[in-house]
Amino acid sequence: MRAFQIILICVFLIMLFSCNRKQEKQEAVSIKKEPNELESLFPKGKVGASELFTGKAWNTGLVDPDSLYTTAVGNVYFEPGARSNWHKHPAGQILIITDGAGYHQIEGKPIQALKKGDVVKCPPNVRHWHGASHDIGMQQLYIVPNTEKGIVEWMEPVSDEVYAMAK
Amino acid sequence: MRAFQIILICVFLIMLFSCNRKQEKQEAVSIKKEPNELESLFPKGKVGASELFTGKAWNTGLVDPDSLYTTAVGNVYFEPGARSNWHKHPAGQILIITDGAGYHQIEGKPIQALKKGDVVKCPPNVRHWHGASHDIGMQQLYIVPNTEKGIVEWMEPVSDEVYAMAK
Repeated sequence: MRAFQIILICVFLIMLFSCNRKQEKQEAVSIKKEPNELESLFPKGKVGASELFTGKAWNTGLVDPDSLYTTAVGNVYFEPGARSNWHKHPAGQILIITDGAGYHQIEGKPIQALKKGDVVKCPPNVRHWHGASHDIGMQQLYIVPNTEKGIVEWMEPVSDEVYAMAK
Repeated sequence: MRAFQIILICVFLIMLFSCNRKQEKQEAVSIKKEPNELESLFPKGKVGASELFTGKAWNTGLVDPDSLYTTAVGNVYFEPGARSNWHKHPAGQILIITDGAGYHQIEGKPIQALKKGDVVKCPPNVRHWHGASHDIGMQQLYIVPNTEKGIVEWMEPVSDEVYAMAK
């Protein structure tokens, strides 16, 4: 019966090996984002200056403004809790949310909750801020039209008290 | 040695069972979109007129042009094989590919292959076309700047011969 034992041990080892192989393969196929990890269309880019953002906001420029298109386009990923300072755009701004959750506020108006697929417009020379929700980050495309009028004027940070009002 | 054989058989069966269980669990976590199903950020919208597109192209307007932002933004989903007619924009156009695969051609230049994350610019008053690849659809955002100059001038369909050169 020794031969039978050897065969059994061989089958056992083959199964162990093949089972682990299958799992490895499945893991390779099923690498998926974590619950709070967002879909990213673009490279993460560079972290925004701490003088302009609270928390970390990563910026990737997609279209640099020039005299032909007079339009700036880019992507910002706000980490959870991160937001821009108050600022305004001489020709306004359009935001397109591509993943996650966040907020937008035009000064004097209620804070607006944002989610994937939302489109927001902020008129020229109006103070506003935008950023991620407290617990989930936000991926947003920004479009700044008519850049011949200017792109952005930065102002003071959004206080924790103002940001907390979004919850 | 009979006891040793029984133990080996038991271990073998336990392994077989636990290996299958692990695979089931992994499959449950890894439910993913079909290979050709694209990520959609926006509603599918309306199918474009057959006079302007070959195959089906679904359009969702996101920002209507007005005198404040002078910018039109929208999303087009081209089904596999679908493409726009030749056309031009008096102030040019910016395309952002958000999923799938497709093509863009400026008249007289080689056909450019497009994939998720690509950004394309077409200068003012230049004839071009864009659409999906032969086998995979394409989700694209379009930005038309300076709409006070006009939005689009439509022309003839892209022939099968021209489209086939992309392959």
